[in-house]
Amino acid sequence: MTEKQSLKEIIAFISYIDQLKNVIRKNGLHDASREENTAEHSWHAALSALLLAPYADQAVDIDKVIKMLLIHDLVEIEAGDTFVYDREEVAKQGPSEAEAAGIILSKLPEQQGELLQNLWDEFEARVTPEAKFAKAIDRFLPLYSNIINHGYSWLPYDVTQTHVSEINSIIKDGSIGLWELVEVMLDDAVQEGYLNP
Amino acid sequence: MTEKQSLKEIIAFISYIDQLKNVIRKNGLHDASREENTAEHSWHAALSALLLAPYADQAVDIDKVIKMLLIHDLVEIEAGDTFVYDREEVAKQGPSEAEAAGIILSKLPEQQGELLQNLWDEFEARVTPEAKFAKAIDRFLPLYSNIINHGYSWLPYDVTQTHVSEINSIIKDGSIGLWELVEVMLDDAVQEGYLNP
Repeated sequence: MTEKQSLKEIIAFISYIDQLKNVIRKNGLHDASREENTAEHSWHAALSALLLAPYADQAVDIDKVIKMLLIHDLVEIEAGDTFVYDREEVAKQGPSEAEAAGIILSKLPEQQGELLQNLWDEFEARVTPEAKFAKAIDRFLPLYSNIINHGYSWLPYDVTQTHVSEINSIIKDGSIGLWELVEVMLDDAVQEGYLNP
Repeated sequence: MTEKQSLKEIIAFISYIDQLKNVIRKNGLHDASREENTAEHSWHAALSALLLAPYADQAVDIDKVIKMLLIHDLVEIEAGDTFVYDREEVAKQGPSEAEAAGIILSKLPEQQGELLQNLWDEFEARVTPEAKFAKAIDRFLPLYSNIINHGYSWLPYDVTQTHVSEINSIIKDGSIGLWELVEVMLDDAVQEGYLNP
């Protein structure tokens, strides 16, 4: 492929991924005015990682964490968003997201396709310090928005503190400091009535 | 400040910047379904920079470009979005955005505040290869969405090809390859009637 053809493929991909702005999550904005889309969530996650980098428990290449978070949810263009508190949805999530990654990344020139596939695989495997920290940020944000907007996506689904703790305890694998803060937030949420015990 | 206090300040800042999801631009999504917000634009820009990195004319630290694009529009939380085709708005843009940066970044612990201030200053000065490439991407995206959605934010404001070329010629300073593609796109847009000559 010539350099010009590759450029055209990338430009077409940039238009394709615009669709992530239309993937709507259960999660609400902090002001509870509407549900969040996955593109703006990805921005929020990448920038939060940069700010919280000193709180990663293991040394991380923060630039790689940021790149993982920019691309981690691209699969939702084909697979849709999975609500973490729906056990049935979560159970069937694995294969369809992997298939989606294949479909999506085949649209790119080899160099860019490989770059994104490697970042996605590393993120999903949750083995490296970068993947663990990226996952911690990805899990922290929707939990935190429920703290601020008083259970926007918790109360309608009767989500309990036990379930939130279980789902989000992987935050611990990336940042103990963040997890300690989360535990206090969850206790407060129960006490104030926007999270079921 | 203790480490715990710094963490709390960063967490508060992460909630504060959620407001960028409510800063609405004139620019439309590629499917023309609605106007774009600045948070999702920032995601789109950061990821597009990663994909287009091989087309930067000078060697760039792409990780720095990505970080610049993640934070470049935070000032809009305080200063609002400025439509590049409104000459009066653009003329008064400078001071109010610089003031906004001061207000916003003072909310962070010193380490993070300085990091973001340096990225923002470098981006705005447009001197380094990283800043030039970041600016090229930032200018390319709204232009490109107008190509795809057939003048969503051009036609209602009687924007002309001359004005688009003038405003966006700084794309040239970051990527000649991208600029060449843009020139073809603009000619097509005029021919197909969604950009005034």
